[in-house]
Amino acid sequence: MTRVALALLSLAATTALPGLAFAQRTAPPVPAPVDPKVAALRDAALTDTLAYDIVEGLTTEVGQRLAATDAEARARIWAVAKLKSLGFKNVHIEEYQMPVWLRGVETAEVLAPFPQQLKLVALGNSGATPASGLTAPLVVFKSYGELANAAPDSVRGKIVYVGNAMDPTQDGSSYGAYGPARFVGPALAAKMGAAAIVIKSIGTDPHRNPHTGGTNFPAGTAPIPAAALSVSDGDQIERIAARGKPITLKLTLTPRFAGTGTSGNVIAEVPGSDPKAGVVLVGGHLDSWDLGTGAIDDASGVAITTAAAKRLLDGPRPRRTIRVVWFGAEEPGGYGGKDYARVHGQERHAIASESDFGADRVWRFEVNLPDSAKPVADRLQSALAPLGIARGAGVGGDGTDVGPTLALGVAAVDLNQDGTRYFDTHHTPDDTLERIDPVQLRQNVAAWTTMLGVVANAPEEIGPVTPRR
Amino acid sequence: MTRVALALLSLAATTALPGLAFAQRTAPPVPAPVDPKVAALRDAALTDTLAYDIVEGLTTEVGQRLAATDAEARARIWAVAKLKSLGFKNVHIEEYQMPVWLRGVETAEVLAPFPQQLKLVALGNSGATPASGLTAPLVVFKSYGELANAAPDSVRGKIVYVGNAMDPTQDGSSYGAYGPARFVGPALAAKMGAAAIVIKSIGTDPHRNPHTGGTNFPAGTAPIPAAALSVSDGDQIERIAARGKPITLKLTLTPRFAGTGTSGNVIAEVPGSDPKAGVVLVGGHLDSWDLGTGAIDDASGVAITTAAAKRLLDGPRPRRTIRVVWFGAEEPGGYGGKDYARVHGQERHAIASESDFGADRVWRFEVNLPDSAKPVADRLQSALAPLGIARGAGVGGDGTDVGPTLALGVAAVDLNQDGTRYFDTHHTPDDTLERIDPVQLRQNVAAWTTMLGVVANAPEEIGPVTPRR
Repeated sequence: MTRVALALLSLAATTALPGLAFAQRTAPPVPAPVDPKVAALRDAALTDTLAYDIVEGLTTEVGQRLAATDAEARARIWAVAKLKSLGFKNVHIEEYQMPVWLRGVETAEVLAPFPQQLKLVALGNSGATPASGLTAPLVVFKSYGELANAAPDSVRGKIVYVGNAMDPTQDGSSYGAYGPARFVGPALAAKMGAAAIVIKSIGTDPHRNPHTGGTNFPAGTAPIPAAALSVSDGDQIERIAARGKPITLKLTLTPRFAGTGTSGNVIAEVPGSDPKAGVVLVGGHLDSWDLGTGAIDDASGVAITTAAAKRLLDGPRPRRTIRVVWFGAEEPGGYGGKDYARVHGQERHAIASESDFGADRVWRFEVNLPDSAKPVADRLQSALAPLGIARGAGVGGDGTDVGPTLALGVAAVDLNQDGTRYFDTHHTPDDTLERIDPVQLRQNVAAWTTMLGVVANAPEEIGPVTPRR
Repeated sequence: MTRVALALLSLAATTALPGLAFAQRTAPPVPAPVDPKVAALRDAALTDTLAYDIVEGLTTEVGQRLAATDAEARARIWAVAKLKSLGFKNVHIEEYQMPVWLRGVETAEVLAPFPQQLKLVALGNSGATPASGLTAPLVVFKSYGELANAAPDSVRGKIVYVGNAMDPTQDGSSYGAYGPARFVGPALAAKMGAAAIVIKSIGTDPHRNPHTGGTNFPAGTAPIPAAALSVSDGDQIERIAARGKPITLKLTLTPRFAGTGTSGNVIAEVPGSDPKAGVVLVGGHLDSWDLGTGAIDDASGVAITTAAAKRLLDGPRPRRTIRVVWFGAEEPGGYGGKDYARVHGQERHAIASESDFGADRVWRFEVNLPDSAKPVADRLQSALAPLGIARGAGVGGDGTDVGPTLALGVAAVDLNQDGTRYFDTHHTPDDTLERIDPVQLRQNVAAWTTMLGVVANAPEEIGPVTPRR
């Protein structure tokens, strides 16, 4: 035993580190046996090529896929053709209407004290400056908390800068911690009377790729121009501010709202033998932001879940119908997920689960299952373990697309991907095919295939649950 | 001894691998002793903070510094103030006139077969498309060699794409191997009648940062629009082309030539005690491309050489005058270096040496010294060895800025930096402060301090040499 381990054990004695305390007191449980058919499906999936083929095809042959644009419509046509060619059943599009927001010119320039160009992108739902630009003093806040505690007089008529200190986290929790600067910072700045807001990107890279993403102005708050500087440009602003001289910024952002447009969900099924057992709903989202080609966000999600479902499609008919949804319009506000729940929410679902956190390996799973289905989780634990996937202590039920369905009381199985490098390129122009690690992508397919093999064929009833929140 | 080493020795017996054959036949030479004063200067420089301070200041307080623009003029003012504040002597600016080229709009869009946006930047000296853009078929060549061997009829009136397969190299040699696509590809395409040219960036990163850089159209060849796609976008074009369908590209590039402007060199000196012994000329370039803030290209070069010279300024007066030059207008065509040789070429120079390959560690040195000064190289070898710097087998004498001076027969000492990651961000928006590794930057300062300590005080005559080429 190493000295570090000894020190940890000593620590555990007083602070009850859960794993180590457990090891001292309790014999390990006997793992549930693994169905050989599930193990065979899992192991075969480690050689999968379909998921990469889908990501490569969608990013090359469609490219950027902004919600409710022609590009997203081309993506739906591409998706239908691909899903039909793979032999899925009941392949169809379900359309809905939504507001359209389109990017325009986006430039920024420090006029004083040190004239220079900056790199930034508008946030989704941003307001616009005049076409000739907006020039105003810049007020620098190092965090959302500093802005929230500032006096409105200090920002009125000015451009607000909000920084952050986001670091990578495996579970993505730093996105929740620092994301409010983007999610609600613009609305707060607008209410305080600011002329515009620029945030340091909600990202973990030190590069000059600004990270876009949606923001939201509640009814009654007129949108102000809102943009994200690259992390590097945010740091530059803070270095300039440290010199103590007043900063003047010229900002030109000309996005526009272009009325109502059409988006849609693409749906495909692996029919099950027992319609009363409930649908197993899986998927990712088809739309992307307009900067990159959306490889990790979220071509990989639709690719992983489709490749896994295809493996069950090619085998014996499962007990439950597996429904794969390539959701539309996730990025600007989860329109596809809401429409799915509106149309299908009254159907019986066994579980709902989405893949929308990149293409790096699954490292953990968490569930929200009714007591009747507790053995399902135990079998998942045994079957996923050889892939390096451990059962987490939390309750599952995450995701923008399946969220509205989960909120109706549907059970959940979350396969958590490693997010350590996800926010390096999330929502940037750099979200392209090169970001995909084929080996980790295949591990994802194996994890999802395993999950479908266990859940779709589980003999237990999987009834409603109390939603996680 | 490992099996690999045994296999290498066996190979050496027949193919004369130089190092191993040497080890078998010859006793190692006795290293030249190291002057304790030089060793002390070297070791103290490993704690340097001045070089980082200069890079941080120049990139923050000036930012982008395109040649012959107001920004470059502000950089000269910044440089003079900094060099005077450090106590250098004879600090002054030497101006010259040059053509001005300014970037405009730059967008590209695949119209068919798969509509999507691409990321690219104009090359320096590029011609312009109409403001409304140029739409034409795209002809794809995977290399400059393919273009050079193509029939002019195949490209006439079309947009040419030229790819490359550049990989990182420690000595930067892959830049020479693949650079012709940028250096002379546009002129060749223009002569063949192409409407425009887009190249895959001369870069080694898989990201979406296009690499700009100068190109050249000889007299009599009208400039055509010439731009670099990011490496990722180049790969995307090749993936699209692999589908076999005709590609139509819409290109909008509106750079312009804006007449004649002023650039200049900033000069500072550490006076020597023996004017007849010749000047030791060192420096880097002050201008940068207009996309990033030029941290590795080349704020680090002026910073390293200045920080090293400052260490000699603060000690006993050296034998030779050390002249530090922050050259102007290197990027668009080496105007500063040419003007320096025009003005100062008839003065006696002992050596000339520049730092213009980033801020990563020095790994090798090479010289071009007269026989009378052979012991200088031996002393350099001993004194640099503790920094992990080995003597190379080649002849020194590299650099755009000191090139015109070296061509007059001035001796050379090259301190070669590790270029393995240099072309990941060279000439991109991502050339910013974050690319500087302070530890490696300090090793550079120590290497240059050592070199100055040896060369500026060498008792030998350092007379003219035959230039390397």
